[in-house]
Amino acid sequence: MIPERQFLNRLRLAKQAKNAKVALGTGDDCAVLRIPAGHETLITTDFSLEGVHFRRDWQSPECIGHRCLARGLSDIAAMGGNPIAAFLSLALPAALPRKWVDRFLSGLLRLSRSHGVELAGGDTAESPGGVLADIMVVGSVKRARALLRSGARVGDFIYVTGELGESAAALHMLAAGKIKKRDVFPNPKIAVGEWLVRNRIANSAIDISDGLSTDLSHICEESSVGAAIDADGVPIHSSARRLSYPTCSDLPIELALHGGEDYELLFTAPKSKPISRIIAGVRVTKIGEILREKKIFLAENGKRILLEPHGWEHFQSRRPSPNRK
Amino acid sequence: MIPERQFLNRLRLAKQAKNAKVALGTGDDCAVLRIPAGHETLITTDFSLEGVHFRRDWQSPECIGHRCLARGLSDIAAMGGNPIAAFLSLALPAALPRKWVDRFLSGLLRLSRSHGVELAGGDTAESPGGVLADIMVVGSVKRARALLRSGARVGDFIYVTGELGESAAALHMLAAGKIKKRDVFPNPKIAVGEWLVRNRIANSAIDISDGLSTDLSHICEESSVGAAIDADGVPIHSSARRLSYPTCSDLPIELALHGGEDYELLFTAPKSKPISRIIAGVRVTKIGEILREKKIFLAENGKRILLEPHGWEHFQSRRPSPNRK
Repeated sequence: MIPERQFLNRLRLAKQAKNAKVALGTGDDCAVLRIPAGHETLITTDFSLEGVHFRRDWQSPECIGHRCLARGLSDIAAMGGNPIAAFLSLALPAALPRKWVDRFLSGLLRLSRSHGVELAGGDTAESPGGVLADIMVVGSVKRARALLRSGARVGDFIYVTGELGESAAALHMLAAGKIKKRDVFPNPKIAVGEWLVRNRIANSAIDISDGLSTDLSHICEESSVGAAIDADGVPIHSSARRLSYPTCSDLPIELALHGGEDYELLFTAPKSKPISRIIAGVRVTKIGEILREKKIFLAENGKRILLEPHGWEHFQSRRPSPNRK
Repeated sequence: MIPERQFLNRLRLAKQAKNAKVALGTGDDCAVLRIPAGHETLITTDFSLEGVHFRRDWQSPECIGHRCLARGLSDIAAMGGNPIAAFLSLALPAALPRKWVDRFLSGLLRLSRSHGVELAGGDTAESPGGVLADIMVVGSVKRARALLRSGARVGDFIYVTGELGESAAALHMLAAGKIKKRDVFPNPKIAVGEWLVRNRIANSAIDISDGLSTDLSHICEESSVGAAIDADGVPIHSSARRLSYPTCSDLPIELALHGGEDYELLFTAPKSKPISRIIAGVRVTKIGEILREKKIFLAENGKRILLEPHGWEHFQSRRPSPNRK
């Protein structure tokens, strides 16, 4: 038996502090949302599957719940939107301890509360194998103002928020058996995305979910441009920086360039627009420039090499490559 | 390797006949939808998991794809809404033939086209076990006009659309080994729901996804009322009616009362409102009345017995009971 009733009770509890934009919760066949006048609706959906996106022996249930929602919130941030409601489809193995579900939901709900997002519905089922979660997040953005991947212009500077490589560093240590567990709680950059929309700063944006090299390639592809990244400019998280071995001194920058799930924002803006080093309390770093030539280069030690996208595809097969190609 | 690229290509193809309400498709981090002014957004999400909601050896891929979307569309119909877009999260086992996926999507897309619904996004992953689909459907309804479960009033007549028991009859035959395969393609009653909203006829509504007895109990619970159903009035599908064995003459009505996944609508309306026998081309049958006493009765052969909800919970454990309790 899956603890469907408990889950639904928790959904109801989560709705007590009701968001005025959510008119109805899980009692009816659909949730009813009110999108502010003059706004468009943003919708994103992301799987979190045991064995593919997470392992129960590597992360706490709270962390897995947090990251499940973070993936969706980060997509809303990438479009410059304001998140309104989340919907969770959750299939659980019959033998899963109820405590695990409680802790998973507690991690998810803590993040949703911190962003004023209501858990407004979902579905539950018994899983034929492993914990299966699918999160859907709905947000809104002023009409025609959403940040797109396709807006980058030749000459734009390229910026990232925060620091990169923390999730990849944890995964590297776990996969190598050097640590047993490691929780990383990335915080989606909602306020930065909203600031960029409000101030009409960015020409394009994406969140770094698959790794900088892969996500930048999406911007370049959708905008029909190329890019040059300055390796020294890439902000590397301290936990990745610590992994510099004498035998593989490239590892920190590899993790920062190709590691996924940092949920920072990557955006481009015209050179003429002044970008503060701190936006909405978050560090912002210039890391490169958009080029006409449709290739992505990495400038390092005075040399320019091609930067191939080597980002996240699946949890199981993800191996940071020791050498860039 | 999952055929993610092929799936996304198909998503893109599906978007060529672009719905004006969907501003962007799968190229960005979120889909952007335009909800008509003065309307609220309806959202529903439903799992279709192999071994829980369907079996690949019992139904064609087209039928499984059709039913995956039908579940979500039917929730929009139950609220009287107009469906706008669907989002499909699909996890596929590595060994699944590509042809299966093509046929699954073809069944899903045929239904979506027939309702003018765009497949506007989704997620893909490799499944750790079995085909895992999660469908999300977004619709709209005029502000404050959505049909709710909580609106039934004492004295309302109770109506159902179409005929009941077809899906349950197929499942009964499959489970008994009397047939090897059976496709049932239920058509969500979108136009009936919209008609009820437009004409302000219904006090409450729900779709029959878990079985009449269970779905009626949801209306009664949310509306704090009871109900009496006339057994002779319940419209039974011919394929259920054919399953009347001398040893179990109750089977047809059992399947109609407790079988799920018919995706017909159950609604209540004041006695004073005339209800046509055909709404939007669909047969509508009066089957009972809402009571003050918070119980559900079945009137049969001049007797009144308690009707307990015995609807669908999970595919695996679903067995039409030979005797009502």
